[in-house]
Amino acid sequence: MGNARFSATLDVVIPFCDVDPMGVVWHGNYFRYFEQAREKLFRQLNYSYNQMIESGYCWPIIDTRVKYIASAVAEQTITIRAELEDEIEHRFKINYTVTDTFTGKKLTKAYTIQVAVNSKTREMCYATPIDILDKVRG
Amino acid sequence: MGNARFSATLDVVIPFCDVDPMGVVWHGNYFRYFEQAREKLFRQLNYSYNQMIESGYCWPIIDTRVKYIASAVAEQTITIRAELEDEIEHRFKINYTVTDTFTGKKLTKAYTIQVAVNSKTREMCYATPIDILDKVRG
Amino acid sequence: MGNARFSATLDVVIPFCDVDPMGVVWHGNYFRYFEQAREKLFRQLNYSYNQMIESGYCWPIIDTRVKYIASAVAEQTITIRAELEDEIEHRFKINYTVTDTFTGKKLTKAYTIQVAVNSKTREMCYATPIDILDKVRG
Amino acid sequence: MGNARFSATLDVVIPFCDVDPMGVVWHGNYFRYFEQAREKLFRQLNYSYNQMIESGYCWPIIDTRVKYIASAVAEQTITIRAELEDEIEHRFKINYTVTDTFTGKKLTKAYTIQVAVNSKTREMCYATPIDILDKVRG
Repeated sequence: MGNARFSATLDVVIPFCDVDPMGVVWHGNYFRYFEQAREKLFRQLNYSYNQMIESGYCWPIIDTRVKYIASAVAEQTITIRAELEDEIEHRFKINYTVTDTFTGKKLTKAYTIQVAVNSKTREMCYATPIDILDKVRG
Repeated sequence: MGNARFSATLDVVIPFCDVDPMGVVWHGNYFRYFEQAREKLFRQLNYSYNQMIESGYCWPIIDTRVKYIASAVAEQTITIRAELEDEIEHRFKINYTVTDTFTGKKLTKAYTIQVAVNSKTREMCYATPIDILDKVRG
Repeated sequence: MGNARFSATLDVVIPFCDVDPMGVVWHGNYFRYFEQAREKLFRQLNYSYNQMIESGYCWPIIDTRVKYIASAVAEQTITIRAELEDEIEHRFKINYTVTDTFTGKKLTKAYTIQVAVNSKTREMCYATPIDILDKVRG
Repeated sequence: MGNARFSATLDVVIPFCDVDPMGVVWHGNYFRYFEQAREKLFRQLNYSYNQMIESGYCWPIIDTRVKYIASAVAEQTITIRAELEDEIEHRFKINYTVTDTFTGKKLTKAYTIQVAVNSKTREMCYATPIDILDKVRG
C-alpha cells in the first residue's frame, strides 16, 4: 500500500485526568488514543463506525500489544499514527506509534488485530467479507 | 419509603488509575462509583439494566449535581450509598453519599435525576410508565 | 470581562469508547470534555496545569452541576465552550455549553466551581491568592 | 512459587459504563480490571501502592499483551486472576485470566511487565532492588 489513505495521524494534548499519581499517563489510557486514531483511519477508508454498522459486521479487537518506551506527561502534545497493514484478507492489523509532537521522540509502539463478526449471527468470519475488502481497498 | 430495598451500598478500594497527579481521585471518576451503586440499587428493585431493556424504556440521566467535601486517595476504601427518593411518578431521583468506610467521614454528596424514554420512539415520557411504577414499588 | 481570553472552545469527534449500549455518550464522560476545555482556558490565562503547580496551589473542584438536554452519538462532532465567570476573588466558576458543531443545537449545560488549596499545607484558601488574581486578570 | 500469596482473584460485576455500543465491554476497559487485580496481589505481597512509594521506586508497565477470547456484557460477573511469575530478579511479569464467574468460561488472557524505576533519578533499574526482592519473597 504505502498509500496515505491507509494511515492516519492525530495530535492529542494530554489532559490532567489521563495522568496518574506518578505524573505520567496511566498505561491503560493509551487505548483511548489508539481508538481515536483508528477511527480516523477507518473514516478515511470509507469504513467509519456508522458505515461499519450498516455493513452488517462489527470488528472486535482480539489481540493487542503495547510497548511503552518513554512516559508522557500532562499538557504534552503527542502524535498518534495508525497504519493498516497490507494483509487484510483475514483481519485488520493496525500498527501505532506515539511520538512527542515537537521533538519526534518515540514514546509508545503498539498494534491491534480485529476480525469481522457477523452482527446478526455473532459468528466470527474467517475471511474479510469481499464487499468490505473492495470498500477499504477503494 | 425508608425501606432497605430502596437504598444500596457499595464498597470500593480506590485503584491507582482513578487518582490524578494531585494524589486524589479525579472528580469525574465519582460518576463511575455512582453508576455502580445505582445499578446495584436497581437490581434490588427488580429493574436491572437487562430488565430495563426488556421494559422498552431507557432512563437517561438529565441532571446531576455533586458536592465534593473531602478528597479520597489511592487504596482508601470508600462506601457509596445510593437511595431512591420517594416521588417516582415523574422521574427517578437518586441521592448519593460517599464516606470513608472505616472512619465514616463524609467525602461527597450527589444526586442524579433520570426520566423514562421510550426506546423505540426515543420520546421522553412525562410520567413514569405505570408497569414500572408497580415493578419498582413491588 | 466579556473578553475572549476568558473563554475557550474545543471540538471533539466523539469516539466509540465514550458511547454506552444505549448508543449515546455516557453522562460521566462529559467531565472529560469539560476538563479539556477548562485546561485550554487556563492555558490562555497563563495559568496552565504546570503554572498552577509552580504557583504553589492546586484547584480542586468542589461543586459541579450538569443538565443534559439532548444526547450525543458516536462520530458526532461537538463543541465545548468553557467561560470563566467574572467574580474570581473567592473561587473560579466556569460555565460550559456543549453544542453540535454543525447545527449549533444545544446538548449540555454545566458548571464547575474550584477553590485554591495550598499545595503544602493542604488548607483551603478562602480568597484567591492575590498573585494568581493578577496573573489571571493579566 | 505455586504459593497462594503470589496470585489474587477479584470479582467484578460489569457496569453499564464499561460497555460499548456493540453491547460488549470495550477492549480498553480490561486494563482497569487488571489494575485492580494487580493492586490486590501487591497488597498481599506487602508491597502495596503506598509501600511502593515509600520504597523509593515506582514500577511503570513497559509491555502488555491481551488476547480477547470471548466478549463480556453488562451485569455479567467476571473473575480476574492475577499471578506473579517466578522470575522477579529483573522485572515483575504478571499473567491474567478473566473468566465468567459462574460458568468458568475463559474470556481474556493477558500479561503485563513492570520494571523498577528510581523515583528520584527517574532511572530504570536493570535488576529488582534487593530489599524489594526480600520483601516480596517474604
